[in-house]
Amino acid sequence: MEAYMSSIGSKLQMLNTSDHASVVSMNLFVALLCGCIVIGHLLEETRWMNESITALTIGVCTGIVILLISGGKSSRLLVFSEDLFFIYLLPPIIFNAGFQVKKKQFFRNFMTIMLFGAVGTLICCAIITTGAVQIFKKMDIGPLDIGDYLAIGAIFAATDSVCTLQVLSQDDTPLLYSLVFGEGVVNDATSVVLFNAIQSFDLTNINAVTAWEFVRNFLYLFITSTLLGVLTGLVSAYIIKKLYFGRHSTDREVALMILMAYLSYILAELFYLSGILTVFFCGIVMSHYTWHNVTESSRITTKHAFATLSFVAEIFIFLYVGMDALDIEKWKFVSDSPGTSIAVSSILLGLVMVGRAAFVFPLSFLSNLSKKSPNEKISFRQQFIIWWAGLMRGAVSMALAYNKFTSAGHTNLRANAIMITSTITVVLFSTMVFGLMTKPLISLLLPHPKDQSRSLSFSSDPTTPKSFTLPLLGEGQDSLDDLGGHEIPRPSSLRALLTTPTHTVHYYWRKFDNAFMRPMFGGRGFVPFVPGSPTERNPPNQWH
Amino acid sequence: MEAYMSSIGSKLQMLNTSDHASVVSMNLFVALLCGCIVIGHLLEETRWMNESITALTIGVCTGIVILLISGGKSSRLLVFSEDLFFIYLLPPIIFNAGFQVKKKQFFRNFMTIMLFGAVGTLICCAIITTGAVQIFKKMDIGPLDIGDYLAIGAIFAATDSVCTLQVLSQDDTPLLYSLVFGEGVVNDATSVVLFNAIQSFDLTNINAVTAWEFVRNFLYLFITSTLLGVLTGLVSAYIIKKLYFGRHSTDREVALMILMAYLSYILAELFYLSGILTVFFCGIVMSHYTWHNVTESSRITTKHAFATLSFVAEIFIFLYVGMDALDIEKWKFVSDSPGTSIAVSSILLGLVMVGRAAFVFPLSFLSNLSKKSPNEKISFRQQFIIWWAGLMRGAVSMALAYNKFTSAGHTNLRANAIMITSTITVVLFSTMVFGLMTKPLISLLLPHPKDQSRSLSFSSDPTTPKSFTLPLLGEGQDSLDDLGGHEIPRPSSLRALLTTPTHTVHYYWRKFDNAFMRPMFGGRGFVPFVPGSPTERNPPNQWH
Repeated sequence: MEAYMSSIGSKLQMLNTSDHASVVSMNLFVALLCGCIVIGHLLEETRWMNESITALTIGVCTGIVILLISGGKSSRLLVFSEDLFFIYLLPPIIFNAGFQVKKKQFFRNFMTIMLFGAVGTLICCAIITTGAVQIFKKMDIGPLDIGDYLAIGAIFAATDSVCTLQVLSQDDTPLLYSLVFGEGVVNDATSVVLFNAIQSFDLTNINAVTAWEFVRNFLYLFITSTLLGVLTGLVSAYIIKKLYFGRHSTDREVALMILMAYLSYILAELFYLSGILTVFFCGIVMSHYTWHNVTESSRITTKHAFATLSFVAEIFIFLYVGMDALDIEKWKFVSDSPGTSIAVSSILLGLVMVGRAAFVFPLSFLSNLSKKSPNEKISFRQQFIIWWAGLMRGAVSMALAYNKFTSAGHTNLRANAIMITSTITVVLFSTMVFGLMTKPLISLLLPHPKDQSRSLSFSSDPTTPKSFTLPLLGEGQDSLDDLGGHEIPRPSSLRALLTTPTHTVHYYWRKFDNAFMRPMFGGRGFVPFVPGSPTERNPPNQWH
Repeated sequence: MEAYMSSIGSKLQMLNTSDHASVVSMNLFVALLCGCIVIGHLLEETRWMNESITALTIGVCTGIVILLISGGKSSRLLVFSEDLFFIYLLPPIIFNAGFQVKKKQFFRNFMTIMLFGAVGTLICCAIITTGAVQIFKKMDIGPLDIGDYLAIGAIFAATDSVCTLQVLSQDDTPLLYSLVFGEGVVNDATSVVLFNAIQSFDLTNINAVTAWEFVRNFLYLFITSTLLGVLTGLVSAYIIKKLYFGRHSTDREVALMILMAYLSYILAELFYLSGILTVFFCGIVMSHYTWHNVTESSRITTKHAFATLSFVAEIFIFLYVGMDALDIEKWKFVSDSPGTSIAVSSILLGLVMVGRAAFVFPLSFLSNLSKKSPNEKISFRQQFIIWWAGLMRGAVSMALAYNKFTSAGHTNLRANAIMITSTITVVLFSTMVFGLMTKPLISLLLPHPKDQSRSLSFSSDPTTPKSFTLPLLGEGQDSLDDLGGHEIPRPSSLRALLTTPTHTVHYYWRKFDNAFMRPMFGGRGFVPFVPGSPTERNPPNQWH
């Protein structure tokens, strides 16, 4: 009987997975994910914790247990795969970011966000690279060429602002939230595009011509990826609007939205573009047009399904990073010289802080110059929070570092091992220490934002026009127009047009949107409203 | 510039996938999935078509195009992997079946469903095996041993009742629908468990002792898998009920439900049980307890998200089967003797029809013996529809055949190639021809069920108690109890207790459920109702 059962077993597992050990790992991993969700929920009220730190801590603890059980051989349940990260985990996170973004705030602050996200990331990368070249050459690390230094710059320019976003309130501090959020997404995309460009660029002879070509290709990637995302989103809106008149089917609509979103990502891969940018803009367009063409059930389902996927993917990444941090293979290279590893990590952390300060404060100054209203300007406290929000390093840095300095999760060169362990140290330290300090720090800088009513909150001023300070629309489901009558005045003079370019663009965009885009692709106001909404937590008008 | 771009590209694809060809395949496949959904929607009104046939047809057409483009070399975009099927595609389909099942109907007809699904599948398998042994031995096929014949029995005992279920109406013919649906799920599980048992069983010396051991292990697998599913479902209900008082978070709840459902499946794999049965019963328990403990948004999201996953997985399978049908490698073995292949396919199709008739009519007679009310008895027309519903063969048969007769999608033995091509032929023929005939046939046998009002519909009789004929509860979201006051009378005598065992079990179960289970695990009535429901398509009381 015993033998027979195990024989059935071996057949079953042959039928189902390659070996039983991987089934055990999957069980453990899924159970840990459940554990992270439950514990994260229980710790939600705590002043210091958030879900990332919880997942990271659980990951490290599990790593220690596995290390002890396996007798110091391994701390991993799964081998890190950039494929897994870039094909399955990152797209839902970025798509959801685009889908839930407050489009009005995002586009109103578009220039500032692009300044911080694109230009700022380039500045940060340049400073980290320069600093690393200067300092590491004097240290006993091993051979690193110019490509490695540039890659280090790109790796450590990729921020992870999740910790800060969990603390900031979209409603109390809309400007700050949209800046931190928008910068985070654009930063992710910029650093990945930059990393790929560096990896493939011939660095042996750099001159003005090749540098110009580099910039041109960078811009080309940026623009075409964006356009592809917008196009895919519009096609999905058109299909659902044209074909589904009268006979809505929630399952088909949801399936089509998910498939089209993923299609946009792999289409970008097909054309050698940046999938991250494409899927982000696809998410924005889908929430502006497609989302308004589907049934109410589909709207609720897609909103929460995308958020859930993104949530699980984020926990998955942090859990994995925590578990992988203790992988013994990388540490044995640095165990003979712990001082070097600590020094490298500290230097990198210092460079990250300097590199970020070097663009946040000057660019904020530049951005403030173009704003008239004091409420649109970024105060020093806000600048400090923006600086702080970008100090954490997370999954993107890890994935890029693995891609550059290991092959299939293994490394044999001492310099590479030091870079990997330093990346792990910086990620763990910044997420844990800076992450834990974020909540107290922000409540210090923004006194009691949650205890006050909205109209009294820090960034709003009762005398300014409502449209700039009040959270005008329901969470994440706003649109580029105002139904509440908060019309932006048409600029009356050339001077006004020059000083408020974003608002002017916004004004003409809205005219164009109402005249051409919405009749074609649907969107709020063009699909009959179905009354009756779930009321829990959210005001009912959120679904209109 | 040209060279540089492709150089970026090669790096990008190295970062993201193993090679560009697989990106092209993925793009094409996702685009085809979208196409199937759109075309399936457009053809929905047609008398003959359904989504499976559409996907199968599109798959075959794509296969032909690929065959022509590749110059006759290949018709496949992806290589069939049983892993893919059994780990990612089948679990959501089966879980959703359990989650959306009308539990009242399912448990009221539990005995009949188990008779058809478990006993019937065994009878069908035995008849097909016997027939194949008798006939194939006289034909020029090649060497097949007793294990192969038993596997053929299990492979062709796995039905695919999706076509019929799409035509039948849950509201107009609740008894028939629940029988066809329930039998389909139990049949899937039985045939997979049976197949695995056959694969691992030592068939060289069969005697009474080993046969008894076989039966014992089969029952052991059945019962422990069911218990594991129930247990996981209850744990999920308990966690969400205990931890989430006052502070509901939709994303966490949805994530936890999805993860726990998947956990039940891989836990079954871990303990060498049947994941299909486990995940089915986990789905039932989750919809009875867990689903009532979460927020309204979570309820809508999970309901539609699970249905969508299942929908996409089904289309994926049919599209793949259609595409794979033309794979040239298998056909070249049989191309020299097309007569043999056609003969084998026809014989198998005949055996399927005979094997099914051999249990549907006798078991219906047996089932009718135990029923008092004429409305609970299965009429001859209904028996014919049940027989017809099980004639189609689908993805499970394909997956089992691939598992048995190929290694990693390739086959080199003539006998094996004939078995694979015959399976493909039977699947294609039964799905296309029988599938196309289903709608007209059922409208012939059940005259105008959709044109009549519910109370006049075919299976209901105004004089019978409402509880047996009326669709008591909203689609898929019913519960084991009646809130509408349709109490089942307590059996007053021993005779009544013997003739209506299912109802008695149901009665005591409800008492137990109300007294112990619900206070512990939640469920309808124990969580405060949140007013305001989406009203599109469904009556508002569905969410209560």
